[in-house]
Formats: sequence, structure tokens, C-alpha cells
Amino acid sequence: MKFRFVWIGKTRDKNWKALQDDYLKRLSRFVKCEISELKESAANETIESEGNRILNVVNPSSLVCLMDVKGRSIGSHELGAQIERWQNDAVKEVTFVIGGAAGVSAKVAESAQSMLSLSFLTFTHEMARVVLLEQLYRAYTIIKGFPYQK
Amino acid sequence: MKFRFVWIGKTRDKNWKALQDDYLKRLSRFVKCEISELKESAANETIESEGNRILNVVNPSSLVCLMDVKGRSIGSHELGAQIERWQNDAVKEVTFVIGGAAGVSAKVAESAQSMLSLSFLTFTHEMARVVLLEQLYRAYTIIKGFPYQK
Repeated sequence: MKFRFVWIGKTRDKNWKALQDDYLKRLSRFVKCEISELKESAANETIESEGNRILNVVNPSSLVCLMDVKGRSIGSHELGAQIERWQNDAVKEVTFVIGGAAGVSAKVAESAQSMLSLSFLTFTHEMARVVLLEQLYRAYTIIKGFPYQK
Repeated sequence: MKFRFVWIGKTRDKNWKALQDDYLKRLSRFVKCEISELKESAANETIESEGNRILNVVNPSSLVCLMDVKGRSIGSHELGAQIERWQNDAVKEVTFVIGGAAGVSAKVAESAQSMLSLSFLTFTHEMARVVLLEQLYRAYTIIKGFPYQK
């Protein structure tokens, strides 16, 4: 199984970037990871146009998991169980899409097989990226029974 | 109104620490803040003993808000509304307590007027601190109608 991450714009803050790199490195010990960082949207770009750019980089055979504050809330153990189900179902690639400030286009939402929420709270994009990577890493430590800092 | 933060142990990771300092500084523009960082618990310290150390630094007249994964999930706008209610009720001090890996003692839980959750997901202490500070800062930008990065 492989994880792809699709998001808009670079992680500019150097501390969030360092944490993102750190958790990506840790997660990569368990699963092949690839980040597709799309160009920042122009101020006048519509959500449909941004959505098309997202869909252009999504592999059609990939299972799309949309991260959205309105998605299904899951706990860390449930996330581990979800990853194990993907493995058991022989899913080859999961693409995690983090939408823009205004969410994602209807087309992107329709392309998603699942929609998960990191929190009821609204996070900045940079936080959401780090939390997602950290939680996926945590989920693998749960699956593998590895110790992990609380 | 004043915010106090009580938690166990230092934030060791330099990136999380830099983010913690940054959000604390930003939040301090809106509300007086003080962090009470308790000494790391010894491996054999009971949750009751740790809880007593927490209660020792809580001002008895303070409203205690316990942060716990099992707490009430709120959105960012609700958190803003909660802060406004505290202001309207002339609450002088709110103490946010972040418990240890095993949660907090019954005494600490009983001392709390409210129990809030940052997410269904389990966060590390260092993440929880940063997310809490960022969300309180975000809540003030919502209350004040200030722009804030998405």
C-alpha cells in the first residue's frame, strides 16, 4: 500500500515544515509516501478550477480519502483499524486530500470514497498536514504494537 | 480575564516549543496568559499524587477547564462563544488543565467546571498544547472579527 497526500501550497512556517518532514519520515518507515503539493491558488481561482487541479494529480485507481472538518470523526485506534481494512482489501494506494480554505469542489467531494475529520475545530492547513501525518504514524505504531510517546 | 495553563513536563521538541511560544505570544495580545509547567512525573508517581500537584497550583477561585479526549467536542466558533460567555459572566480566571498520558485523577476531574476535547484523536502532550493555544488565539480572532489564516 502507498499513501499519497494532495494539498494546495507549500508549508511556509519553518517549524510546521520541520514537524511535517519529521512525521513524514517516521511514517515512511511503515508505508511508502508521496506528497503532491499543488501550486497556491490565485486569488480569483474558483473552487471548481482548484478542484480540477486536485483531480488531475489523483490516480484514478486510488482510493480517495478527503480530510474535512465536516467529515467523520474517528479516534486514533479507529484510524488504525481503517488502515488495516485497507490492507486487507488489498487497496494499492490511498490519496489523502486536504481541501482549501473554502473546502473542495463538488467533483472532488464526489471522487472521495471516505471523508474523515481530524477535529471539530478548524485547523490551519499547515496544522492539518502535521496532525494527519502524525496520526497516520500513530495509527501504524498502534497496528504494530510499537511504543509511542503519549 | 486571565488564562492559566497547567500541564506536566516541558515541551522538549524544539519545533513544538517554538510554535507554543509563538501562539502564546499571539494569544497574549488578547488575554493575559500564564503557564504553570509542573515537573515531569516520576515513573512510579500515582495519578492521585500527580493530580494533587496539579490542584496545588490551581487558584481555588479559578474556573477549571479540563482538556481531555473524552471531553465535549466543540468547534472553533463555539469556543469563541464560550470565551464570550466567560467574559459576560465576569469570570476572572480560567485554568486550562492538560492531563497526563493516563488522564487525571478523580479529584482533578471533579474540580473541573468543564471538560473539552480538542479532537477524538489522541494527541501527544506537545501537540495538544500547541493546538489549544492556537485554537484560543483563533477564537479571539473570531470574537474580534480579525482576519486569520485559514
